[in-house]
Amino acid sequence: MDTDNTPFPTEAALDAARESGRRAYELDRAHVFHSWSAQAQLKPMTILGAAGSYVWDGDGNRLLDFSSQMVNTNIGHQHPKVVAAIAEQANKLCTVAPAHVNDARSEAARLITERTPGDLDKIFFTNGGADAVEHAVRMARLHTGRRKVLTRFRSYHGGTDTAINMTGDPRRWPNDYGAAGVVHFFGPFLYRTEFHSTDQQQESERALAHLESVVAMEGPQTIAAIVLEPVPGTAGIMVPPPGYLEGVRALCDRHGIVMIADEVMAGFGRTGKWFSINHSGVTPDLITFAKGVNSGYVPLGGVAINGEIAATFADRPYPGGLTYSGHPLATAAAVATINAMTDEGIVDNAARIGAEVLGPGLEKLAEFHPSVGEVRGVGVFWAVELVKNPHTREPLAPYGGSSAAMSEVLGACKKGGLLPFANFNRIHMVPPCNVSDSEVAAGLEILDSALAVADTFVD
Amino acid sequence: MDTDNTPFPTEAALDAARESGRRAYELDRAHVFHSWSAQAQLKPMTILGAAGSYVWDGDGNRLLDFSSQMVNTNIGHQHPKVVAAIAEQANKLCTVAPAHVNDARSEAARLITERTPGDLDKIFFTNGGADAVEHAVRMARLHTGRRKVLTRFRSYHGGTDTAINMTGDPRRWPNDYGAAGVVHFFGPFLYRTEFHSTDQQQESERALAHLESVVAMEGPQTIAAIVLEPVPGTAGIMVPPPGYLEGVRALCDRHGIVMIADEVMAGFGRTGKWFSINHSGVTPDLITFAKGVNSGYVPLGGVAINGEIAATFADRPYPGGLTYSGHPLATAAAVATINAMTDEGIVDNAARIGAEVLGPGLEKLAEFHPSVGEVRGVGVFWAVELVKNPHTREPLAPYGGSSAAMSEVLGACKKGGLLPFANFNRIHMVPPCNVSDSEVAAGLEILDSALAVADTFVD
Ligand SMILES: Cc1ncc(COP(=O)(O)O)c(C=O)c1O
Ligand SMILES: Cc1ncc(COP(=O)(O)O)c(C=O)c1O
Repeated sequence: MDTDNTPFPTEAALDAARESGRRAYELDRAHVFHSWSAQAQLKPMTILGAAGSYVWDGDGNRLLDFSSQMVNTNIGHQHPKVVAAIAEQANKLCTVAPAHVNDARSEAARLITERTPGDLDKIFFTNGGADAVEHAVRMARLHTGRRKVLTRFRSYHGGTDTAINMTGDPRRWPNDYGAAGVVHFFGPFLYRTEFHSTDQQQESERALAHLESVVAMEGPQTIAAIVLEPVPGTAGIMVPPPGYLEGVRALCDRHGIVMIADEVMAGFGRTGKWFSINHSGVTPDLITFAKGVNSGYVPLGGVAINGEIAATFADRPYPGGLTYSGHPLATAAAVATINAMTDEGIVDNAARIGAEVLGPGLEKLAEFHPSVGEVRGVGVFWAVELVKNPHTREPLAPYGGSSAAMSEVLGACKKGGLLPFANFNRIHMVPPCNVSDSEVAAGLEILDSALAVADTFVD
Repeated sequence: MDTDNTPFPTEAALDAARESGRRAYELDRAHVFHSWSAQAQLKPMTILGAAGSYVWDGDGNRLLDFSSQMVNTNIGHQHPKVVAAIAEQANKLCTVAPAHVNDARSEAARLITERTPGDLDKIFFTNGGADAVEHAVRMARLHTGRRKVLTRFRSYHGGTDTAINMTGDPRRWPNDYGAAGVVHFFGPFLYRTEFHSTDQQQESERALAHLESVVAMEGPQTIAAIVLEPVPGTAGIMVPPPGYLEGVRALCDRHGIVMIADEVMAGFGRTGKWFSINHSGVTPDLITFAKGVNSGYVPLGGVAINGEIAATFADRPYPGGLTYSGHPLATAAAVATINAMTDEGIVDNAARIGAEVLGPGLEKLAEFHPSVGEVRGVGVFWAVELVKNPHTREPLAPYGGSSAAMSEVLGACKKGGLLPFANFNRIHMVPPCNVSDSEVAAGLEILDSALAVADTFVD
C-alpha cells in the first residue's frame, strides 16, 4: 500500500495522543450526549488523529477510513490546503453577521454557482444538511403557495423536525406525529423492487407511473415540492435507472411542483461529478448541499436557488435565516476545498476509481461471496448489500435493525484495518474522492476477508 | 478612547481590503441569498476587518461594534487565544463523526457542564441555536410523552420550521400554518404590560397567573415543555421581575412539564453571569445555547441536559442527530473561549460594565432625551426603547416594522461610528463582554447625538 505524500503521526505523537485519548473517553462518557443512540449502551471509538484516507483509533491502530466519517471528508483528512485556508481566515476574520458582505462568503457562492446546473445562481448558506433542507422546503412552499411535500421512502434528509419527518427511514418513526404536510412514495430500487419489475427500464417506468399516481391522488395543486436524493445515500446508494430523474422533472413541470435535489451526501464529487444529478440532463429548481462542500472541516450547508424562485424573494422578504449563514471560516474552507478539488482533479479521480478500481473490485467480490446480494454505486459511492440467502434476498440484518452477523462482519473489517460506513444489512464503501488505487486495493482485500465471515451466515 | 492592546489593521492593509471588498460586494449581490430579506432591496454593508470591539466597513471606516454582530462575539473580535486555538485544532484534526470520541468535544462538554446550574451534566452539541431548540423540544416531547409546547409572545427561537413556529415575533407569520403543537403566552413586560400592572411585583404575579390560566385551559397533561428566554433578547431584553422564573419553575414541577431555558443569546456572559438564569435560583431541565459559547468563531450550539431527561435516553435511543454534532474545530473554539473568559475575568467585566458604566450611562441619556421611553438591561445586554410620545408610549416604528425615523437614528449612529443592534423601535447596546470603560463612554457619546435626531420625531 503506498502512502502517497500523506504525513503520518510519529509514534511519539501517537503515544501522547493515546494518553489524552483515554481522558477524552472518560469525559465523553461523563458529559457527551450522542446522536441516535441509547447513551448507556455506547462504547464509542476514539479517534486520535487522521490523515488522507486514514484515521487512528484510541489504541493507535491505523484504519482505512472508507466511511469518510459521515460520508463527508471528500477531500480526505487534513488536506494541507484546506487546513492552511482555515488558519489564514481565522487569523483574518472568524465571524461576521449574515447581513454584512464578506469576501470568503462571496467567493464560495461564486465557486458553487459555477458548478451548479442551469440557472441555480444564488446560494443561501446554512450550517449543515438538515437546515438546508428546511429552508429549501420553505422556499418551495412560499414560491408555490402550497404546503405538501413528497419525499421517498428509503431516504434521509436530516434531524430537525421537518427534515426528519421528510426522511424515509426508521429514524423518522419516533419523531412522527402524523408527519404534517409530508407524503412518502416509493422510488426505483430494482433489487428490492416495489413494482415487480424485471429490469431497470421497467423499474424506471413503473416507479414514474407510481409517482404520477401518488401526485394524482394527493392533488397536484396541493404539492409544493418533490424532494429526492438523486442517488439515495444512507438508504442504500440506489443509482437511478435511465429516464427516472427526467420523468420526475417532467412531472414537476406539468404541475408547477418545485423539484428539490438533496445533494447533501451525493454532491461535491462523491459520484464522480460535482453534483450527482449531473449524470442526468436534469436541472432541479433547488439543490441542497453540505458535507463535501468543504469536506465538513467547518460546519456548512446551503441551498442553490434558481432564478424563478430567487425572483419570488426579490421584493418580498424571505422569512428565514440563521446567525451563522455564510460564516467566513466555513465558506473560506469551501473556497479552499473546491479549488483544491479542481486543481488536483479530485472529482475525476472519484469517477475513475469508481469505473476502474472500486466498482470492478466489488463486482468481483460479489461473484465469490454468496453473502453479497448486490453491489451498486458510482464514483466513490458504493453499497454492498449483504443477505442471508441470495435467492430470497433476506437481508443479513432487518430493515431498521442490526444483527449479530452484521456486528461480526463489521468487527472483522475493523480488525483488518478498515472502517466502512454501515447501515442495517449494508456496508458502504465510501472513501475520499482522492483515494489512491493502492488504498482501494487494500480496502478491498480487508473487505474480502470480512465477507468470508458474512458467508458463514448464509443459509 | 483607549484602544487597549487591540492590534488594528494598517492603512496599507485596509487599502488592499477595500479593493477585495468591492469585488466581494459585487459577488454578494450576484450570488448570495440573504436571511430575512427582500433580495433586490438590499444594500449590505461590507466588513473589511474586525478587532476587539471594532469593525471596519467597506470604506475603511472604523465602527464600534455594539451589535456584537448577532449578539454573539461575547469575547470581541479576533481574540488571539481563540484564533490560535482554531489554527491549532485545524492543524491537528478538523473533523470526526459524532459517533467517535474526540478530545476537544469532551473538554468543551466538561467546561460547559461545570458552568450549568444543577445536574445539567450532559451536552448534546448542535451547529447553532435553532437546531439546539429543535432537539431540546424533541427531548421534552419524548421524555413526557406529550406534544404541546408553550412559548412566549415577544421571543425568538430560530429559523427552522419548529423553531420559527415557537418564535413569538412577526418573522413567524409567513411560516405559520397553524403552528401545530405550539401555544404562545404573554410574559412579564411592565413597560408594555399586558396585565394592567403598575409595578414589577404585580407584573410578575399577574404574568404567572396568566401562564397558569393558559396551562389550565390547554390541559397540563398535554404540555411537554414551557420554553422561554430567561431574558428575552431580540424581542427587547426584558429582565424578568422578581419571582417570575421561580413561579414558572414551580408551575412546571406541579404538572410534570419540562422547563427549557433558551440561553442562546443571553448565555455565556452576556448578562454578567455564565447563564442568565443564574440571576435567579432556578434550575431549568434543559438549557439551549449557541453564540457566546465560542463567540460564533465556528458554528456551534447545543443542549445541556439534566439527569432525569438524560436517563430517559440511557437505554432507549435518542432519535435525533446531525453530521457535525460536537465538531472538533467548533468545540476547540469553545474550549479556548471559555478558558479565556475565565482567565481574563470577562464575565465579571460584563457585570461591572452593566452596573457601573453602561447601565448608568444609558439611564442618564434617558433623562435628557424624550424619545427614550425606557432603557432596561443587565450586563452588556441593554435595550433603548424609542417612542414618538413618552406618555402614550407609541413606538418610533411599529411592531414588526421599520420607519423613516428609526432609519435616521440608525444612520446617525453609523455616521458617528457606532454599530448597534436594532429591532423595530429599539436600539440594543450589546457590546462584547470584554468591552472597556472608554469604549462604552465613546459608544454612549455617539448614541447621545443619535438620540438628538430621535428627539426631533417626538410629538
Ligand atoms: C441526503 C442527506 N440530506 C440531509 C442530511 C442531513 O445533514 P446534516 O446531518 O448535516 O444535518 C444528510 C446527512 O447525512 C444526508 O445524507
Ligand atoms: C434566544 C435565541 N434562540 C435561538 C436563536 C437561533 O439561533 P441560530 O440563529 O444560531 O439558529 C437565537 C438567535 O438569535 C436566539 O436569540
